[in-house]
Amino acid sequence: MEVVQVLHMKGGVGETSYANNSLVQQKVISMTKPITEEAITKFYCSTYPAAIAIADLGCSSGPNTLFVISELIKVVDSIRQKIGQKSPEYQVFLNDLPGNDFNTIFKSLPSFQNKLKKQLFAGSGPCFFTGVPGSFYGRLFRNKSLHFIHSSYSLQWLSQVPEGLESNKGNIYMATTSPPDVLRAYYEQFQQDFSLFLKCRSEELVAGGHMVLTFLGRRSDDPASKECCYIWELLAKALNEMVFEGLIEEEKLNSFNIPQYTPSPAEVKSEVLKEGSFTIDRLEVTAVNWNAYQNEVDLSDAFKDGGYNVAKCMRAVAEPLLASHFGEAIIDEVFRRYREIVADRMSKEKTEFVNVIISLIKA
Amino acid sequence: MEVVQVLHMKGGVGETSYANNSLVQQKVISMTKPITEEAITKFYCSTYPAAIAIADLGCSSGPNTLFVISELIKVVDSIRQKIGQKSPEYQVFLNDLPGNDFNTIFKSLPSFQNKLKKQLFAGSGPCFFTGVPGSFYGRLFRNKSLHFIHSSYSLQWLSQVPEGLESNKGNIYMATTSPPDVLRAYYEQFQQDFSLFLKCRSEELVAGGHMVLTFLGRRSDDPASKECCYIWELLAKALNEMVFEGLIEEEKLNSFNIPQYTPSPAEVKSEVLKEGSFTIDRLEVTAVNWNAYQNEVDLSDAFKDGGYNVAKCMRAVAEPLLASHFGEAIIDEVFRRYREIVADRMSKEKTEFVNVIISLIKA
Repeated sequence: MEVVQVLHMKGGVGETSYANNSLVQQKVISMTKPITEEAITKFYCSTYPAAIAIADLGCSSGPNTLFVISELIKVVDSIRQKIGQKSPEYQVFLNDLPGNDFNTIFKSLPSFQNKLKKQLFAGSGPCFFTGVPGSFYGRLFRNKSLHFIHSSYSLQWLSQVPEGLESNKGNIYMATTSPPDVLRAYYEQFQQDFSLFLKCRSEELVAGGHMVLTFLGRRSDDPASKECCYIWELLAKALNEMVFEGLIEEEKLNSFNIPQYTPSPAEVKSEVLKEGSFTIDRLEVTAVNWNAYQNEVDLSDAFKDGGYNVAKCMRAVAEPLLASHFGEAIIDEVFRRYREIVADRMSKEKTEFVNVIISLIKA
Repeated sequence: MEVVQVLHMKGGVGETSYANNSLVQQKVISMTKPITEEAITKFYCSTYPAAIAIADLGCSSGPNTLFVISELIKVVDSIRQKIGQKSPEYQVFLNDLPGNDFNTIFKSLPSFQNKLKKQLFAGSGPCFFTGVPGSFYGRLFRNKSLHFIHSSYSLQWLSQVPEGLESNKGNIYMATTSPPDVLRAYYEQFQQDFSLFLKCRSEELVAGGHMVLTFLGRRSDDPASKECCYIWELLAKALNEMVFEGLIEEEKLNSFNIPQYTPSPAEVKSEVLKEGSFTIDRLEVTAVNWNAYQNEVDLSDAFKDGGYNVAKCMRAVAEPLLASHFGEAIIDEVFRRYREIVADRMSKEKTEFVNVIISLIKA
């Protein structure tokens, strides 16, 4: 499986699209807002540049794609207005893998730009939007051409499924039953990928440029900790049931592994220090309930079912991966079962995604 | 009709897609190659910049999209290799309206980039590709951020259908039977659009930057000259037949006009001189047969039918416009009739598209 070709959030704006099932990711972005805002403020006030080039890496396609960008621009615009500074021009780079649904983003841009313009003060500079298809585990931008980089819930995706996972039978990710060599293979892939990421970004950022990264991660030192692996273990449970009933070949399941690594803050920090181009401004951990609609009031009945919400959220993220390996035909059934399994677990225990956020400055 | 929302070449890679029906446009690009190559050579050899930012405006989606870009890069790479200069980095901006099928371009990029890399000499600089959705009748790029602009068969498209065409009944474009106020409305829209285009590009290009523009145009001073209007008159003929047979409402046809203007070399030159930011390096006229497959050998039988080829070519260009005004239902029938009408005319007269090419340097 070529991750670059296969991995993408589910496109379009339909019921099962990522655009309609990305509330968890939006909540995470909102929770991270104080850190992001602090970073862009520090950057802007240190130099008052005439142009700011901002990249969002792993932008996906949906309401979140432009949400962060508009928040960043509004922060700068508000400062420059207060202090009477001429507005910078904004150059926005929206990056994701080539399979991402850029068409849907681009079609929404004219109305987004009109709306944004109305939210900015008079005299705000023009905003130029571009799409940048490609893997962030490689160079995407010219030398020293960026001032600010943002990435949320993308860097847990690896460049490839690690090699040497043959012994991870019955699992689809690191799990409590995974042998040590599986955990090692996953960790090494993460180290290799994240250090390459840092190296590329350090070439692309100007000195003094900022970067705020949010990983789906974990608190624990144990890479197979339930807090990060359980959500996939329950999906593996649904797949194993279907193997047992003869609906999926066992071999198919054994050869499937999710190209993801959910790091701890210590692991993230360690790679940054090793790479050496960045100073760490902040490193924090937060958590968000699996069910993004929990604590929301005035919900329609459908959204009161936490299992339904979580299954839809995970489907929007994982469907293209699963469909490319197992075929389209099983998808509905997998997520029907997953929904039930998840609902059962959520009724019995506290279920959260853990977020690792790091704010960096290019030395 | 909002041209920005509606106008785009037919997306995807299907039988009637622009990607599969753009041989005319490719021939024009090939014919223009000497001029384009001269321009990029002059630019590169005047400054040997460390980075070259190239924009293709109206890039569409198909083989032509990346064809020009790869040719430009190969020219620079060959020179820098010969003279032992360190390769520049290449930043490529692919621009078209937001409805253009960028997804198909982006999915083809990884294999294109691999192929291109193999065609370049060792040590060639990285090429960064970005998509820029938006109308070129407005700013698209940061101040002084571009070195080279190319646009082929795009600038004949106007930003909107001119106002005041009520008297152009039965026609869908300027025609021999169009009243003078219709011709004037079309010309004024062209002047307004092209001068705005020049102003925007002059802000975006660095001093000494080059721009090569190819218009679908005409030789004659008469804007309703057959050489540029006949192709649309024949389409109007098909539509009028259908009005006569009650398949299309007359009012529908009367309110439909193509947002295009096919200028003469003198008209293009006049706007450039008026705007004042550019010096004219070359201004030329060429022509290409309506049937791009004419003179090709070893054709399958289908392509030996000139009417078929021309109708498909025009359908790929005009279908989204027609469908948005008349509805999808009539499209097949319109082009079935058009094919017959075109075939008949081609058997009786010489039918050519005229190309106006201008090579400019930012003062």
